[in-house]
Amino acid sequence: MNERILKLSSWMQEENIAVSFLTSTENIFYLSNFYSDPHERLLGLAVFQEKEPFLICPAMEKESVKEAGWEFDILAYSDIENPWELVEKAVKTRIKAFDKIAVEKEHLNVVRYEEILHRFSGTKIVSAEEKLRQLRMFKDADEIARLRKACALADYAIEAGCAEIREGKTELEILAAIEYELKKKGVQKMSFDTMVLTGANSASPHGVPGQTKVQKGDFILFDLGVVIDGYCSDITRTVAYGDIDDRKKEIYDIVLKSQLTAIEASRAGVSCADVDLTARNIIAGAGFGEYFTHRLGHGLGISVHEYPSITETNPLILEKGMFFTIEPGIYIPGTAGVRIEDDVLITDNGAEVLTKYPKELKIIS
Amino acid sequence: MNERILKLSSWMQEENIAVSFLTSTENIFYLSNFYSDPHERLLGLAVFQEKEPFLICPAMEKESVKEAGWEFDILAYSDIENPWELVEKAVKTRIKAFDKIAVEKEHLNVVRYEEILHRFSGTKIVSAEEKLRQLRMFKDADEIARLRKACALADYAIEAGCAEIREGKTELEILAAIEYELKKKGVQKMSFDTMVLTGANSASPHGVPGQTKVQKGDFILFDLGVVIDGYCSDITRTVAYGDIDDRKKEIYDIVLKSQLTAIEASRAGVSCADVDLTARNIIAGAGFGEYFTHRLGHGLGISVHEYPSITETNPLILEKGMFFTIEPGIYIPGTAGVRIEDDVLITDNGAEVLTKYPKELKIIS
Repeated sequence: MNERILKLSSWMQEENIAVSFLTSTENIFYLSNFYSDPHERLLGLAVFQEKEPFLICPAMEKESVKEAGWEFDILAYSDIENPWELVEKAVKTRIKAFDKIAVEKEHLNVVRYEEILHRFSGTKIVSAEEKLRQLRMFKDADEIARLRKACALADYAIEAGCAEIREGKTELEILAAIEYELKKKGVQKMSFDTMVLTGANSASPHGVPGQTKVQKGDFILFDLGVVIDGYCSDITRTVAYGDIDDRKKEIYDIVLKSQLTAIEASRAGVSCADVDLTARNIIAGAGFGEYFTHRLGHGLGISVHEYPSITETNPLILEKGMFFTIEPGIYIPGTAGVRIEDDVLITDNGAEVLTKYPKELKIIS
Repeated sequence: MNERILKLSSWMQEENIAVSFLTSTENIFYLSNFYSDPHERLLGLAVFQEKEPFLICPAMEKESVKEAGWEFDILAYSDIENPWELVEKAVKTRIKAFDKIAVEKEHLNVVRYEEILHRFSGTKIVSAEEKLRQLRMFKDADEIARLRKACALADYAIEAGCAEIREGKTELEILAAIEYELKKKGVQKMSFDTMVLTGANSASPHGVPGQTKVQKGDFILFDLGVVIDGYCSDITRTVAYGDIDDRKKEIYDIVLKSQLTAIEASRAGVSCADVDLTARNIIAGAGFGEYFTHRLGHGLGISVHEYPSITETNPLILEKGMFFTIEPGIYIPGTAGVRIEDDVLITDNGAEVLTKYPKELKIIS
C-alpha cells in the first residue's frame, strides 16, 4: 500500500469511517498517480480501513490506470453498465458495516450524493476534503522533484516573455509567444490563464490580457505557471520597458524588499501570519499598505491553490515539506502595479526558492 | 424580463416550482449574459414564477454584472458576509411557500445542497438541468451571431495550421502556431484542448498531441474550436502531407461522402437517429463500420457538448434553431484516421453549414 493511502486509512480508523469514496481528479491522482478528468463519467477511488482499495473507471481508461502504477483492483465499466452497481457490490464484498462514509462534499454533486445515500442507506456522510488538504500540504521527494521541473519551466517562460518585448507588441502577442515557446518544450498545460499586463493594466491583480501595446516607461507584469507531471508552478515578475520614473522605481524596490524579507522569515516554526505580516509591514511602513490588497501567498501542488494559506490571520506553523508562493504586490489604480512571486519550499535550513529568475529590476530597452 | 427567463418561469409554473436557484457559470450566463467562474465563491441566480429574479455575486463582480446588462437586483457580498443568509432573506422576502426548489443537481455540490436543505427545510429539491438543456438547444438570433464568429475563427485556425506544416515540425509546434495566430486575433479561450495528430496518432479519436513529427505520406488531423462571446465552435479537418496511398484516399473519400450526405439529410422533421444512420450506413456499407467508433455529432453553444446528441438511438426530431456538429470518422488503429467535422444550424431551408473551410482532400507538399 502506498504511504499516502495508509495515512488516509489511519485517519479513517480514528474517525470510524468505513469507506472513503473519492471522485475528484486531484485527490485520485494524489492517491493513485492516475490523472484523468472523466467529465460526466464516474471515476472513483475507494479506500478502506484495512481492506485493499479499488478504483472504478470507464473501460477505455483501464490500461492507463495500470500504466500509472495502480496495483489494486480496477473496476472498468462499459457505457452500458451502471458503475454504481459495481461500486456497491465491491464495497459490500469488502465490508459489512457502514457507520460513516467519507466523500468530497465540496466536489461531489447532488446526483451522486443521492446515489450513495440510496445504496448505503442509514450511513452518515462526512467529508474527507479537509484531511486530504492536510495530507497534500506536505510534499514528499517525488512531488518536490516534479515541482522543481515545473518551476524551472516557469523561469524559462519569463525569459521567453522578456525576449518578446518590443515596440508595438500587445499583451496577447507576448502571451502567445510565451506559450508557443513552452509548447515547443513539451508543456501541455498552464497552471492558470497566463497574465501579461502592461501600463495601468498591471495595477489589476486579476487583470485580463488584451490588445494593449507595450509602451516605454511602463511596467510589464507576467504571472504564469506550468503543469508538469501533474504539478503546478506559479511565478510573477514585473519588468520595466525603457526608463521608468522614480515613483515606479520606488514601488519596485519596496515590493522586492518585502518579498526578500518574507522569504528570509519563512522557516519551520514560524506562523503563516508572521510571514504575511513581515511582508505586509514593510509595504505599510513605506506608506503603500492600502495598495497591497491580497494575501501574501498560497500553497500549491496538484492544484494551484492549496494549503497553507499565507494570510495575516492564519496561525498555522510552517513545517518542513510545505510549499507555497510569496507574492507581495503594490497596485496603484490607473497607474501601475508591481508584484514579485516565487515558489518556496520549507526545508531543514529555512526556505528554498525553486523559481530562480532574477529579481533585481530589469530594464528592457 | 428577458425571454429566456420567462420560459424558465413558465416551466416552473407548470411544475409548481417556487424558486430555481442556479449556480453554474453556463446557465447563469445563458439567463443573465453575465459570464464568470467564481471558483469556490458563490455565484447564484434565483428565478421565480412571478417575482423578479436576483443575482448574488462577490462584491468585486457587481459592476461586471451591470455591464453585462443585468437589470434586476444584485446581492453583492463581501468576504466577511455569509452569502447564504442574503439568499435566504431575498427569497423569503419574495415568496412564502416552497413546495419545490429547483437546482442543478449535476452541478451543485453537497455542501451547498445541505445549506439549501437547512435554510428551506421541508422543501422538495428537484433538478432544473434538463429543462435548461432543452431551452439552450434552440439558438436565437443573438446566439447565432456569436456562433458565426466562433466558426469563422475556427476556419482561420485550420488555415493557420495548414500553413505551418513542413518537414520536421512536431504536432505540438503546429498546435502552438495555431493558438499563437488565434491569440493575435484576440481569441482568449479555446473550446477544448486543441488536437493536432499525425500518422498513427490520427487513428485515436481522443489522442493527445506530442512530439511526433509530420512525415510525408501521412494524414494530419486538426480538431479544435474557439470560444467567442461565450459561444463555442468545433471543427475537424484531415489533410495529407505529401502523396498518400490509395487506401488512405479511399478512407478520406468515404468519410467525406458520409459527412456531406449527413449534412444533406439534416433538416427540420428528421430525427437525430436518422441523421446518424445516414452517415453510419455509408461508412458501414464501404466495409469500415467497425472503425467508426463514436456518435455522429453533438449540439454545442455555451458548452462544447450540449443537446441534441446525434446518435443512432436518439428519436429527437430536428427543429429550426438547433445547432450541432456532424463529424463522421474512420480510425484504423496503428495506421491512420480521418475525421471531417462541421457545425450546422437547422434553418427553414435545411442545414446551414457555419464552418466553411474546404473539405476536398488537401495535399500539402
